[in-house]
Amino acid sequence: MSKNAMIAQSGGPTAAINATLAGVIRGLRKSEEVGTIYGALHGITGVLDEKFLNLSESCDKDEEFLPALTNSPAMYLGSCRVKMPDPSAERGIYDRIFVTLQKFNVGYFFYIGGNDSMDTITKLAKEARRRNSDIRFIGVPKTIDNDLILTDHTPGYGSAAKYIASSMLEIAHDTYIYDLPCVTIVEIMGRDAGWLTAAAALARNSYNETPQLIYLPEVPFHRSQFLKDVKNVLNVSKNAVVAVSEGIRDEDGVYISAKAKAEDKFGHMQLSGVGKVLETLVKEQIGSKVRSIELSILQRCAGHAASGQDINESLEEGEAAAAYALQGKTGVMPAIRRTSDDPYTYEIVERDLADVANRARSLPREWVNEAGNDVTEDFLRYARPLIQGETELVWENGLPKYLPIGHLNHKIR
Amino acid sequence: MSKNAMIAQSGGPTAAINATLAGVIRGLRKSEEVGTIYGALHGITGVLDEKFLNLSESCDKDEEFLPALTNSPAMYLGSCRVKMPDPSAERGIYDRIFVTLQKFNVGYFFYIGGNDSMDTITKLAKEARRRNSDIRFIGVPKTIDNDLILTDHTPGYGSAAKYIASSMLEIAHDTYIYDLPCVTIVEIMGRDAGWLTAAAALARNSYNETPQLIYLPEVPFHRSQFLKDVKNVLNVSKNAVVAVSEGIRDEDGVYISAKAKAEDKFGHMQLSGVGKVLETLVKEQIGSKVRSIELSILQRCAGHAASGQDINESLEEGEAAAAYALQGKTGVMPAIRRTSDDPYTYEIVERDLADVANRARSLPREWVNEAGNDVTEDFLRYARPLIQGETELVWENGLPKYLPIGHLNHKIR
Repeated sequence: MSKNAMIAQSGGPTAAINATLAGVIRGLRKSEEVGTIYGALHGITGVLDEKFLNLSESCDKDEEFLPALTNSPAMYLGSCRVKMPDPSAERGIYDRIFVTLQKFNVGYFFYIGGNDSMDTITKLAKEARRRNSDIRFIGVPKTIDNDLILTDHTPGYGSAAKYIASSMLEIAHDTYIYDLPCVTIVEIMGRDAGWLTAAAALARNSYNETPQLIYLPEVPFHRSQFLKDVKNVLNVSKNAVVAVSEGIRDEDGVYISAKAKAEDKFGHMQLSGVGKVLETLVKEQIGSKVRSIELSILQRCAGHAASGQDINESLEEGEAAAAYALQGKTGVMPAIRRTSDDPYTYEIVERDLADVANRARSLPREWVNEAGNDVTEDFLRYARPLIQGETELVWENGLPKYLPIGHLNHKIR
Repeated sequence: MSKNAMIAQSGGPTAAINATLAGVIRGLRKSEEVGTIYGALHGITGVLDEKFLNLSESCDKDEEFLPALTNSPAMYLGSCRVKMPDPSAERGIYDRIFVTLQKFNVGYFFYIGGNDSMDTITKLAKEARRRNSDIRFIGVPKTIDNDLILTDHTPGYGSAAKYIASSMLEIAHDTYIYDLPCVTIVEIMGRDAGWLTAAAALARNSYNETPQLIYLPEVPFHRSQFLKDVKNVLNVSKNAVVAVSEGIRDEDGVYISAKAKAEDKFGHMQLSGVGKVLETLVKEQIGSKVRSIELSILQRCAGHAASGQDINESLEEGEAAAAYALQGKTGVMPAIRRTSDDPYTYEIVERDLADVANRARSLPREWVNEAGNDVTEDFLRYARPLIQGETELVWENGLPKYLPIGHLNHKIR
C-alpha cells in the first residue's frame, strides 16, 4: 500500500534550499510506492496546523514547476524557528504531530534545514522508534553558515559565497576609482563560524588584492592590532578593504558588535552593527575616509547570483534523501564527502542525524593565517570549487522570474 | 592634420559609465581624422598630472577590450571630485589644462559624468572660446541619480534601478517566509531625488505587494504619519517592507538621517543612517520585529545585474558624443528623448551643456501618490522599459570577468 510523503523547510533561507526541495520531490516521484507529496507550510508548525500544499499536483499541473522551484531563492514552503521540546518532558506536541502524519497517511517525512532542524528531525526519528511508528524521518542539510559537521560543506553555502565574492569584487572596482586613502569595512554574516566571511578572499585576482584583511569569529579580535593592521595596509595601498564577520569577539569572548542583543530561542546571540563599530574606530583613531557596508540578508537570498555547483549538489542531496527514505532508512541525512580538490570531485554519503545535530563546525584554525587577519591558500582551494558555474535563471520583464509565493502572503493575526 | 582625443570620467561610479566610454571610443575609431585616443586617469586631475592611458593601443592589442569595457562596472579611468573654479577668478588651472591638451595635440575632449562634471565641461568649453582654441569639449551624461535635466533619463540609472528592483524582489522572498509580523526598512541612495528609491516599486508583481510604502525626498516626511502608515500595512499584511531614500527630510527641510554630516565640496550633504533611525522608531513605537537594510554602494556597481537597455543606450550616447565632436560641435552633450512608453522608443538628441549644468531634476510630484507614501502607475510606466534586458556578462572561475583595473591600484602618498 502506497504511503504519502511530507516535506518541510526550517531555519534561515538560502538561494539553494528550494533546489533541495526540488531534489526530494524529483527523487520521490521516481518511485511507484509514493502517493501524494505534501509540503507543510512554515516548518513543523505547518504540520501542527495542518497547513499543506499538494506538491504532486503542482508538478502534474506545470512541468515548469520543478525547474522554477530549483532556481527560486528563500523558502517556497516558508520557515519557522521552533525549538522542539525533549520528548520525555513534553509529549503533547509529538502526539499531535504523529496523529496528523497518520491522518494524512504519511510514510516519509523530510525536514530541510540547518543545525536546529537536524535536532528536530533527530527527536522525531527517535520518538518514532519509541512509538513503533514506521514513518521514516530524513534530514536534508542546508545552511549558508556551512557549520554542519560530518559534511564537506552544506547546500546554500556555495551560493552565498559566490554572492559575497562577486559583491566584494564589485566593491573593489567601486573603491579603486578615487585617488584618496580610503578604508571600506564589509560586514558579513556568520555568528559563530567564519566560513562566509572567509569567502570574501575569493574576490582577489591578478589586479585586485582586496580584501587585504579578514577577521573571523574563530580568532579573538584585538582593537589595537586591527588599527595597526589597517595602518599597515594604508602604507602600501590607497584602498584598504576589510571583511569582517558579524560575530567577532574580543579575548574575553565579548562581541565587538555594539548591540549584543538578547539570546534567541536556541541560545544564539542576535547581532548587528560590528561594521559601524569598526568604522567609528577607524574614523577616530586613523582619521582616513572610511565607510562600512553590511551585506545583510541579500547574501542569503540572491537567487540571481546563485552558484551552479551549489544548486546541482542541492538537487542531488535532495534526491539522495528521497532514496534513503525509500530504502527504509530513518534518522539519517545525506552529506558530501570530497574526494579531490582539483579537479573537484565528491560523493554523496549517508550520515546518522544523531551525530550531526546540535554541533557546529568552525573554520579550522590552520586555514587562518598566523596573524589571525587572513585566510590561507588551503581555504581558497577548498572554497573555489563551490562557487563555480551559474544557473539557468529566467528573467522576465527585467527581473528574475521566481516561483510565486502568494501562499506565504497571508494575514496572521 | 589629425588630432588626438582625450576622455575622462568623473563623479560616482555606475554599472554603465564604462559602456559610455566604450561608445565614445567606438565612435572616434570610425573616423580617419582622429589620432590617438587617450584616457586621463582620475578625471581632470589626470590631465593636470599628465596621467594617461593609451586607449587606441588597448583596442589594437585586444579585440575583446571594448566588449569587456562595456560590461565592467565602476570607472575604468578612475574618478575625481574636483570643483573647477570660475575661470575669471582663477586662471592658472585652465592655463595648465590647455597647455597639456596642446602638448598632446588634443582636438577632442570628452568628460563623462553627472551634474558637477557637466559644470566642469561647460567651463572648459567657455574658456576654449575665450582662448580661441578649437578644441571641442563634449559632455557625456551618466548618473545613477537620474537627476539631469533635459534628458528623459541618464545612463546608469536603468542598471541601478534593475539591481534595486531585483534585490527588493529577493528581499520579499526572504521576508515572506516567517509567520510573524515583521517590518523591513530598505535604505536606498538618492540625496535629493527619489528616482532610485521609486524604482523599488518595480519589484511588485502578481504575488508580491512589497514594498507597500515608499518615502522620497520630494515629499516632507512626518514621523507620526510614517508610524500610522506602517501600522496600517501590518493590519492587512504580516510583512511590511518600506523603501526609503537616504535623503528624506522633515517639514523644516532637516534630514531624518541621524548623521547629517558636513557639506562636501559641491555643497551636498553627506548622509547615512536613515534606515537605522526608522528601525529604532518602529522598534520603540510599534514594537514588532524590525530590521533595516542599506543597499549601499552595491546598487551603483553591480555589473552582474546591469540592464541591457541601459548598457546599449550608454554605448549609443557615447557614440553620439563622438559624432558631435567630429561634426565640429562643442559645449554640448547627447540626451535621450523618449518617443513612446510602450513599445518603448527614443532618439538621441543634442543638448547645450550650459542649459544642463548645475541644475537638478526631481521626481515630478504627480508621480508620487497624494498621501506621499508611494509612486503612481505613471512612474512605473516610465521606469519599466529602463530595466529590460540583461548583458552578455562573462563569468570566469565563478566570478564576473571584468576588465582589470590594476592601473588604478597605485600608491598615492
